[in-house]
Amino acid sequence: MNGTTTFSTATPITVLGLGNLGSALAGALLDRGHPTTVWNRTAGRADPLVARGARRATTVAEAVAASPLVVVCVLDYDAASALLAPAADVLADRTLVNITSGTPEPVRELAAWATGHGARYLDGAVYAVPQTIGTPEAFVLYSGSREAFDATRGVLDPALGAGTLVGTDPTLASVQDMAVLSAMYGLFGGFFHSLALARTAGITAADITVPLVRWLTSAVATLPDFARDIDSGDYTTDTSTIDINRAGLAAILTAGRERGLDDRLLAPVLDLYERQAAQGHGTSSMARAFESLDALDSLAGGKGSAVA
Amino acid sequence: MNGTTTFSTATPITVLGLGNLGSALAGALLDRGHPTTVWNRTAGRADPLVARGARRATTVAEAVAASPLVVVCVLDYDAASALLAPAADVLADRTLVNITSGTPEPVRELAAWATGHGARYLDGAVYAVPQTIGTPEAFVLYSGSREAFDATRGVLDPALGAGTLVGTDPTLASVQDMAVLSAMYGLFGGFFHSLALARTAGITAADITVPLVRWLTSAVATLPDFARDIDSGDYTTDTSTIDINRAGLAAILTAGRERGLDDRLLAPVLDLYERQAAQGHGTSSMARAFESLDALDSLAGGKGSAVA
Repeated sequence: MNGTTTFSTATPITVLGLGNLGSALAGALLDRGHPTTVWNRTAGRADPLVARGARRATTVAEAVAASPLVVVCVLDYDAASALLAPAADVLADRTLVNITSGTPEPVRELAAWATGHGARYLDGAVYAVPQTIGTPEAFVLYSGSREAFDATRGVLDPALGAGTLVGTDPTLASVQDMAVLSAMYGLFGGFFHSLALARTAGITAADITVPLVRWLTSAVATLPDFARDIDSGDYTTDTSTIDINRAGLAAILTAGRERGLDDRLLAPVLDLYERQAAQGHGTSSMARAFESLDALDSLAGGKGSAVA
Repeated sequence: MNGTTTFSTATPITVLGLGNLGSALAGALLDRGHPTTVWNRTAGRADPLVARGARRATTVAEAVAASPLVVVCVLDYDAASALLAPAADVLADRTLVNITSGTPEPVRELAAWATGHGARYLDGAVYAVPQTIGTPEAFVLYSGSREAFDATRGVLDPALGAGTLVGTDPTLASVQDMAVLSAMYGLFGGFFHSLALARTAGITAADITVPLVRWLTSAVATLPDFARDIDSGDYTTDTSTIDINRAGLAAILTAGRERGLDDRLLAPVLDLYERQAAQGHGTSSMARAFESLDALDSLAGGKGSAVA
């Protein structure tokens, strides 16, 4: 298969794994007219799609053989590797797009295995819920084969979400995905602390979430400014300093403790500010707190080697 | 002063404290035609406003005496209390709007002191940066005197930002403010972890912030759904479960540690999920993690008494 291959709505596509995401994708492919083959460990999950015109494969090898483009969407990389193993002999010249979530190391192994069997491998991290698949809200970060990315854009962008190739190292989408989700889990932790603090004053979760959503939406929009400070290493500011945020967060945690509130979710954030203040950077941009974490990471045993 | 008093653009207004926020407010009041009196500890900060028509007061008592509506915007509540003390005798019948940031206890004291001297007291938490003062982006949570809130809306809403009275207990705006900022600090903590993880793969802060802002904007919009789960105590879900998030976050932290990344910012969030899973709630909505924090708070010495 050469680099000029592109896919169209006439291209048969196989979807392996029919959880919420896989089912939504297969449905979107059917809607767009693709001959669609589906496989799921629990075969009954395919019934609604078969009723809409999908072809049910009884083995993974049969499913992979049915289409030049195969999308894998299962629980994790162990599951993906295990189910693809019996299909090794039919992988040649297939384009394998893996939108299973996972960490970088197994991605590297699976990509090497698939390309070793003659497939083009593209890893994808999908940012969507089943309801937003194929809408302008959904987007996908891909890494791996540029040929595969170019060939699949015309069919996967409309069916799944707008795709960006973040690099040809197949693990990059996974690293970016973990980084994006890390920020989300920090948000969730802060949200839980917020609700607990509000509850001490008899304020419901719904009530506090109204101003919270409004303010967080603004706060998220300021993150590119902090990112710029961090990339440049220039932490000059006349607005949000380390000292202002250190004092504000310290007051919040003190008031919370006085109300019987556990501070373990946010005390580590305060510690980042305090380390910068102790080093004389109180008037720097609050983004300098990142440098505290970077120092801790070095203490923790040095950076892992950068992904090549 | 009775409850039917309302203010208009003809109302003289005093602004005490001319930091970025106070200066922006005074400027907006001048733009709208209010006779505006200003005072600042470092008198020179008033010069640009005096050049635009503001009257400079030389003492706080003179400044308070000059207007029926006085807005206080200083560094903290200690500063606010200290500077208002000499003006106690001219507070009667004044409406005092305090937009200084602070924790609940000092608010309660200052409100009691001011009302004891015949003033109507309104506490406000302003959600704006100086550039957005008076724009539709800015908003203000108020608590305290309903009469003061009703009287000031017509002048403060356009000049400062759309106001909401969250309750007549003057401390409520402060509690809500701390709760909102708690969530923001959680977001910042997650953001720093995210950038550190991206850096291990050679991805710049700017590059990772692009998908991060996009995804977080969606994630923030889902918070009202989680708030509903928490208020109702009904954690039934068919999408984002404790188990899914526990596995996802555990994988992120493991991969981070393998790259030399300190996990202290997010390990406490994982712990909330793990506690729920250990209690057999793995298939509940991930919002149930809030209950883990609630249990920890009880262990930490019981809830503080709810604010009356």
